Amino acid sequence: MKLGRLNHIGVATPSIPDSIAFWRDVMGATTIHEPFDMPEQGVKVCFVDTPNCQIELIEPLGADSPIAGFIAKNPAGGQHHLCFEVPDITQARAEFEGEGMRILGPTRIGAHGTPIFFLHPRDMGGVLTEIMETPK
Amino acid sequence: MKLGRLNHIGVATPSIPDSIAFWRDVMGATTIHEPFDMPEQGVKVCFVDTPNCQIELIEPLGADSPIAGFIAKNPAGGQHHLCFEVPDITQARAEFEGEGMRILGPTRIGAHGTPIFFLHPRDMGGVLTEIMETPK
Repeated sequence: MKLGRLNHIGVATPSIPDSIAFWRDVMGATTIHEPFDMPEQGVKVCFVDTPNCQIELIEPLGADSPIAGFIAKNPAGGQHHLCFEVPDITQARAEFEGEGMRILGPTRIGAHGTPIFFLHPRDMGGVLTEIMETPK
Repeated sequence: MKLGRLNHIGVATPSIPDSIAFWRDVMGATTIHEPFDMPEQGVKVCFVDTPNCQIELIEPLGADSPIAGFIAKNPAGGQHHLCFEVPDITQARAEFEGEGMRILGPTRIGAHGTPIFFLHPRDMGGVLTEIMETPK
């Protein structure tokens, strides 16, 4: 495969409202999208635009959220994952599988409404990596 | 201030040669720059281009490297910092200081040859944040 653009950096936070205030008032973000729930992933999500990519703020939704453990270990939040775009999710999945990389669960619909999957950080230089099909 | 472009994501690694092989062979990076030492920062550095930003691979240079502790805690490596561009480093520093953010050390010359400083992750939502003046 050919490395695609960095779509977003996932940043976990204990509070999306507090993080919105931080990115707006301290970092100077001018486009911050409406937060929304992704109950099937157990997170609340809010995208913040930078000039060349997005920050995806993620907050635990419910006590059994998959990021609850991350927030317990990092109460202030922190960098959670990187998301790269690919033109074809099925082909990308087959290529990562062919390289012996562990894929976390099935391909599913992500926060941008296109198919995504996650790769195990232990196979990815310690970086939890999301692969998403570029929105059409 | 106004949020500038994401210049790079700092990714710590125990081995730049191994990470270069990973980004080339698994992730499909086509432009990987020559690694170089930054002895004054205690790191070896290698930039990997994505279509819209860079990955900055950083490996400890010497036992007292400032990232030696990070690698001890994360032996496979992992996400280390985010770097955003500003047009004027002096003004940006004054604005962050005005917001009460802790700045880690003096403004110095970074891996791209322009002035940079780092902000304390505890003030930045858990994200170690580098601010760099955009290369002219």
